[in-house]
Amino acid sequence: MYVIVVYDVDVKRVAKVHRFLRTHLHWRQNSVFEGEVSRAQLYEIKRTLEGLIDGEDSVLIYELPNDSFNLHVIGVDKSPVGDVI
Amino acid sequence: MYVIVVYDVDVKRVAKVHRFLRTHLHWRQNSVFEGEVSRAQLYEIKRTLEGLIDGEDSVLIYELPNDSFNLHVIGVDKSPVGDVI
Repeated sequence: MYVIVVYDVDVKRVAKVHRFLRTHLHWRQNSVFEGEVSRAQLYEIKRTLEGLIDGEDSVLIYELPNDSFNLHVIGVDKSPVGDVI
Repeated sequence: MYVIVVYDVDVKRVAKVHRFLRTHLHWRQNSVFEGEVSRAQLYEIKRTLEGLIDGEDSVLIYELPNDSFNLHVIGVDKSPVGDVI
């Protein structure tokens, strides 16, 4: 499956969340990561994030069946996924 | 089609971008909007955003064939789409 992860966390925890997500997914923009994961990896990502975040923090994980979406970039494409792989 | 819009724009333009997206989509989190749009609406959204943003601003629009994704929320669900409609 393919996931798009968007986070809105307190500045105190941003670096930790960013560092963790970088180990599993491709950084796309500011607080957006995406990538192909297994069900086990998705479970692990959710479990770890639950431990990292606190207070009013919020993380959304859009789980898509595959990467058959179109991505429209307006303005700067900060981190083209294709270049990262 | 269904779109997820994520923006990373300079603080000077955040309010304008947020206000515009609110007229077409449902606010989901911080800088995330989503919703069902027609092809014509998607074109209009892209065209207007191109006029609103500047400099290093970046907006990503994930265009999905439909809303058949699973959304996992970790932490606070800031604006459940179901409540907004």
